[in-house]
This record gives sequence, C-alpha cells and structure tokens, in this order.
Amino acid sequence: MIDESYNAVKSDFITALRIIYREGLSDAFAHLSARSNDGNEMMFMPRKSPALVQRDELFFVDLDRPVPQSALHQAIYKTRADVKAVFHFHSPAVVLLSVVGQSIRPMHNYSAIFYQGVPLYTGTGQVESPARAGEMAKLLGDAKALMLRGHGAVVVGQSIREVCMLALFLEESARLLTEAMRIGTPMFMERDEAEKISKRTFKPTSVERAWEHFAAKCTE
Amino acid sequence: MIDESYNAVKSDFITALRIIYREGLSDAFAHLSARSNDGNEMMFMPRKSPALVQRDELFFVDLDRPVPQSALHQAIYKTRADVKAVFHFHSPAVVLLSVVGQSIRPMHNYSAIFYQGVPLYTGTGQVESPARAGEMAKLLGDAKALMLRGHGAVVVGQSIREVCMLALFLEESARLLTEAMRIGTPMFMERDEAEKISKRTFKPTSVERAWEHFAAKCTE
Amino acid sequence: MIDESYNAVKSDFITALRIIYREGLSDAFAHLSARSNDGNEMMFMPRKSPALVQRDELFFVDLDRPVPQSALHQAIYKTRADVKAVFHFHSPAVVLLSVVGQSIRPMHNYSAIFYQGVPLYTGTGQVESPARAGEMAKLLGDAKALMLRGHGAVVVGQSIREVCMLALFLEESARLLTEAMRIGTPMFMERDEAEKISKRTFKPTSVERAWEHFAAKCTE
Amino acid sequence: MIDESYNAVKSDFITALRIIYREGLSDAFAHLSARSNDGNEMMFMPRKSPALVQRDELFFVDLDRPVPQSALHQAIYKTRADVKAVFHFHSPAVVLLSVVGQSIRPMHNYSAIFYQGVPLYTGTGQVESPARAGEMAKLLGDAKALMLRGHGAVVVGQSIREVCMLALFLEESARLLTEAMRIGTPMFMERDEAEKISKRTFKPTSVERAWEHFAAKCTE
Repeated sequence: MIDESYNAVKSDFITALRIIYREGLSDAFAHLSARSNDGNEMMFMPRKSPALVQRDELFFVDLDRPVPQSALHQAIYKTRADVKAVFHFHSPAVVLLSVVGQSIRPMHNYSAIFYQGVPLYTGTGQVESPARAGEMAKLLGDAKALMLRGHGAVVVGQSIREVCMLALFLEESARLLTEAMRIGTPMFMERDEAEKISKRTFKPTSVERAWEHFAAKCTE
Repeated sequence: MIDESYNAVKSDFITALRIIYREGLSDAFAHLSARSNDGNEMMFMPRKSPALVQRDELFFVDLDRPVPQSALHQAIYKTRADVKAVFHFHSPAVVLLSVVGQSIRPMHNYSAIFYQGVPLYTGTGQVESPARAGEMAKLLGDAKALMLRGHGAVVVGQSIREVCMLALFLEESARLLTEAMRIGTPMFMERDEAEKISKRTFKPTSVERAWEHFAAKCTE
Repeated sequence: MIDESYNAVKSDFITALRIIYREGLSDAFAHLSARSNDGNEMMFMPRKSPALVQRDELFFVDLDRPVPQSALHQAIYKTRADVKAVFHFHSPAVVLLSVVGQSIRPMHNYSAIFYQGVPLYTGTGQVESPARAGEMAKLLGDAKALMLRGHGAVVVGQSIREVCMLALFLEESARLLTEAMRIGTPMFMERDEAEKISKRTFKPTSVERAWEHFAAKCTE
Repeated sequence: MIDESYNAVKSDFITALRIIYREGLSDAFAHLSARSNDGNEMMFMPRKSPALVQRDELFFVDLDRPVPQSALHQAIYKTRADVKAVFHFHSPAVVLLSVVGQSIRPMHNYSAIFYQGVPLYTGTGQVESPARAGEMAKLLGDAKALMLRGHGAVVVGQSIREVCMLALFLEESARLLTEAMRIGTPMFMERDEAEKISKRTFKPTSVERAWEHFAAKCTE
C-alpha cells in the first residue's frame, strides 16, 4: 500500500514528528496518523519516539484492526469523514490546563483558530479500548481539538501540515491562558470575533509559511 | 530603488530579523520596515518567516500602495516624520500582558526606556484596513511602542538597530512585569526617574554594544 | 571488581548521568549508584559533575565503607533488597515543591507512576551521617521516590535505566504540580486509578522507548 | 602591569564572563573585576558584552581613577580589604525579586550560602557617582552579595571562580524564592542552620567542582 504516490506524505509525516519534538510538544510519546487516499486506511507509526521514527517504519492499517495506540485515531476517522490527519500528543501547557479542569478559549490570534471550542474529556487514564475511543471521538464533535484530562490532546485537520501547526497553536494557546490566569482576568473574545480572525489568519498560505519556518528549524 | 547605498541597511535588516527570531520574539510571523533615504518609501519584506527572508527578497514600497501587512507601517511613517524604522511582532510576554489589559510601566533599566508610556490598543483582531492602521498610529502618539491586545506590539525608532533593541527591551519589560504581578506589588518608578535613567542608559553607544552582542549570537 | 561483565552497566551509568545533565536535572552535583551482581557492593562515581565523569573513574564500594556522598545510597541498598539502582539529584521543580512543604500526588500519566506516594523528609541540611541516611531510607519505605526539603530527591528502581526515567518523571510531575497550584485546584487521581495507569504505562517496554529517546538526544 | 604572572587570572576572567553569559545571567551588560596582587589596583574590562570581551582587552585601573562602570567596584575594594573579586550583573530573577522589594533568604543548599543576608539597595537608577557607590559598599557590609532595586546585584569573594559561582547561586536562589512565593509559604531556614549547611557545602573543593562543570559547558 505504501508506494511512490505516498512519498510526499511520508516526508511530511517524518518532518511533522521532528517539529513536534523540536518544539517541545513531545518527549518519547506522541502519535501521528494520516488517512489513505482511498479513505479506508491510515498511515501510522510504530511505538517509537517521534524524534527517532524513520520513514521506512511507517505502515498502513485499516480502520478496524487494532494495533498499539491506534484506537483513538481510528475512531476519529470513522466519525469525521472530513478529517485527513490526526495528531495525539502530551504537551506541557495542555496537560497543565487539563488538570485544573479548564480548556482553551479565544484570546489572541492563535487561540482564535479554535473558535468552535475545545472539549475537555474529564475521565482519567488512557484510551484503553475502542469503546472509550468512540466516546472521545463523539465528544470531539466538529471541533479542531479535544483535550484529555491529565493526559494530553488530539488535533484533527485536512493535512499533516495543518495538524502539526494546530498542535503548536494549541500548546501556545494553553500556555498563554495558564499564564494569564495567574495574573488577572483574561480578556476573552466572543466567538464571532474569533471566527473572523481565524478566517483571516488561518489560511493555507499561512499554514505553509509556518510549516516552512518550523521545518527549516529542524535542519539547523 | 535598492542600490549600493542600501547595502548596510539591507545587512542590518536581515540581521535584525535573525536576532528577533533567535531571541524568541517571533515564530514565522513578524514584519520589519525601514524608511528610504528620501523619506517617501519604506524597505519591506515578503510574507516569509523572519528566520528565512533573504537579502535579495527585500523591496521598496511607497507609503500609499497597499501590499500585504504594510498598512500599519505606512500609517506610522506618515504620522511620525521622525521615525526611520518600524518593527511589528507578536512576542509571548507582550501578548500575555495585553490580554490582561495591562501595559508596560517603568520598573528597571530597560522598562525605564519606555518612560513616555506604551499605549494599549484594546480592539481585537488584525490591522485589516488603512483606516484601522491610522487609528493605531494615532494612539501611538509620540511614544516608542504600542501594544495591540491579543496580537502583539509595534516599536518605532531612528534605525533598524534601535528598533531591534527596543523590541528586545519591550519583551523583557513585559516579562518582568507579568512575573512581578504574580508575586507582589511591583515598585514602579516615577516618570522623571525613568526618563533620567533612560537618558543615561539608552544611548547610541549602548545600542551599539547590545547590537554587537545579539548579532554575534546569531552567528554562533 | 569492575570487569567485562560490567561493560553494559558502565555504559548505562555514564549515559544516565549525561541524560540527567542534558535534561536540566543537575548542574555539577548529583550521584548515581548501581548494586553489584552479588548484591553486596555498589558501583559509584567520584566527586565530579555528572556531565564530566568518565567511565574509567567508576568504582565499587561495599555497603559499609564510607566514601564521599555514599551514605544515603548504602542505607537504601541495605534496607531495600529489591533495589538495584539509586539516583540522588537536586532538580529545580523538586526543590521548589519541597520548600513549600508539598510532595507529588498523581494527576497525569507520569505522576501516576508514583501512586505509592513520595514521602518528604522535612529536616534541613545534608545527609551528614549514616544515622541520618538510615532515617531517610526508613522514611522512603516501599516507595519509588523520596523528597528532601530544600535539597532534592532520591529515586530507586530495578535498573539504571529505570531510575533515570523515574528521575525525569518525578521532576516533570513536580513541575506540573507547582504550575497547577498557581492557577487553580488540581484534579488529583485516586490511588487505585493511578496504580491502574501506572501498570498500563510504566512497563519495561516504555522505559526502553523513553531511554532510547533521551539517550539519542545526548549524542545530537 | 599585566604581565605573565596574571596569565591564569586573565584566563579565569574571560571564562567567568563566558559562563555568566552562557548561563543566562547577562546579555550585553555585566562587569567583572579582580584585585591586583599588590592590592591597589583592579583588573577590569572594557565596555563590551561579557560574551565578546577578549583577553588582551583587559586592563588595570587604580582604585581612585574613574573609568566607565568602575565606581562600585572601586568603592568595594576600598571598603572590604578581604575582597579579591567583584561581579556586577543584572540577572532576571534577581531583578524580579528586587522590584517587589524582597531579597534572598535561606531555603535550600545554594541560598544557605548567603546566610549573612543580602541587603537590598532601594534607591532607583544607576551607580552614577563615587558617592553613591560608597553608600552601596557601606550597605553591603560584610555580606557576600548586595541587590540593587530594578537594576541587579553585586557579589564579592576571594577569587574570580568564587564570585562566578556566587553569581550563579544568587540567581538560582532568587529564582527559587520568586517561584515559591507564588505557590505557598516557603519554609525558610534559621541563620544557624544555613550557616552550618554553607560551611559543609560551600568549600573550595565544591567551588572547583562547579567551576569545572560550567567552564566545560562553555566549550561544548
């Protein structure tokens, strides 16, 4: 199933893992996936650090066969036909915000991108089972991101590049909110203001600009 | 319009972008400009990361022709005849301070440089239009810096080197204030004390010393 | 006593010291030890920075002969027959948590690993004497870690790799808790929830995955 | 006056500047000095970044002749016959602690070293004049360090290596205290406990161990 037509996807897959590592969003544990062209499978990675996974270790798995760490990814692809890539990670500010029972709210350019809201799954522990993964996918709804208490987050999007940037922006938004909560009452935006900003700033050209920036840092 | 007489300006332009990136004041998004010798145009940069823009990509634009991201720069050059360079960026502590509705006040050597005050534009969103850019330029008044809620800041000065240092000092001042607000009641300075310190410490020789330091770090 | 059968242990010993340094858990002061195969001695390091100790400087010492910094290690090996490696270090968040009289409680995947609790020794000062080391070993009980007020922590485990990861996870857990205490009331886990998560996530394969990740960073 | 007998001192002088820069205690501004062998002069540095000053730029100045930034150093050498080296710097946590009107108190191994207390000079602004430098030297008394509100600190000791380590330990102590103030009531030590710890841990051998560690980092 992995043939030449996936060369560019595989390159983006590895680069996204390196960006996430380099920007401090993962240590040895984080999992990325990308939907196959026919829609029925996903490209996935072995149980290795995002800093170390190699291109030829990527593999395809269909949306029903369980492999380690696959359940949440599969549940989302089945629930959300629009989603082409999924990233699950455990970044510091996201975990921090989750353990005080809060979630992202729009305050600045990056947090505005999540104007649909970011649901917080308040159960503890791992994904553990396809049934639990299904609950989480349901809670995600039509949002771009879901937070998991004491665990991390998942972001979904149209491409590996988009989910990679959404992961960075979610962590940055969580960092800003946790900092702001310490020193005063943050000035949040209304949903319509946030949506308007998102539509001006979160465009394919800006995703490309940001991707080019972070990918270049990985080769410094 | 870009000829040999701009060689030194172009070098400083690129170095300033690298400093801002290296010091953590920008990711892929920040825009610098410098007024042309005849005063009627500005040297500007394409829509690329400050870490990646190349010298031969710089271009001149007059103060009325709209190009992407140019409106705020143009509005300031038209309002402030004394200004030779403008830097617009979205650094973490500046954004943080802005979303709790506060601005810089003099507390230490660097914040004293902003003794004229740093107005905070409390509207949300992007610059969006020349009219809005004009409002922002008006709010800047005769100050050295303006903060934009949930967005970032703009600093103005006599040279690229000066605005680059002002950007670093503004972020450092915002960081100090947000930290101090968490642990007690900061001891602010009176305006005249701050002005006196600024006149002793923020001189061309100290801008040169700081520039030499930060420029050297970029080539490490 | 150091012969070829210890080649792998010596390699892990040096790598663990480099990881601890590289991840910011030590400056010049931290001490690792590993129990000998016959159980009656421990491999130890000279009084040098973890960043600088060399493989051929490692030595064995029996569990009664005092050498600098050895008392706490020896007391633990004598009290805890199950322990094969001990790490004593002074990482920033652990010290911070200790000076406000708090200790780790399970909140997320990593802190759940310490579901047995992490006792806090509230006396001030150094280990100083075998008698004091004995008190500390007694307070450790059957836990994986002990915190020392204004001083640091000690972690114990089945191998050098395991104690190295426990040190990283303890510091990360302390960092998360100190951050969470600033912004709200953390949602802790019950002990049985934490134990369940620990048993799912803190397995030899995940220790290996994490070790591979952090060891690779040291050679970047 | 600079002859071969100062070769080792000059090497330590430059290494100390690089350490201070590398550890984040200075940007372009910080000044070190060392008393001459006959006691009547001090080795000093030009107005350049600690990251950039070169060995052959060091010079001697007597204790009465004013050169830029020399007044505080000279006043201390005249007041404190025991002092062989002085370091003046503007590190982030020290500045932060100073602007909320607090100073270091013993809480952990490093802060215990400052058991004599660290006076805080609450006037604003620069040293400005020999008279003001004299006031500051008087306030220092027999302590190891003095903090200057909104400005920085000065540390004094028996050698360049000792003041370099004291600078690192002062900043680390300030960082710990500012963090602890945010999350609870720090458990301070009594002066006699702190003095006892200091006498056990802050010895020439431990200064050497720490110096070796930090000096090695500068050549990585």
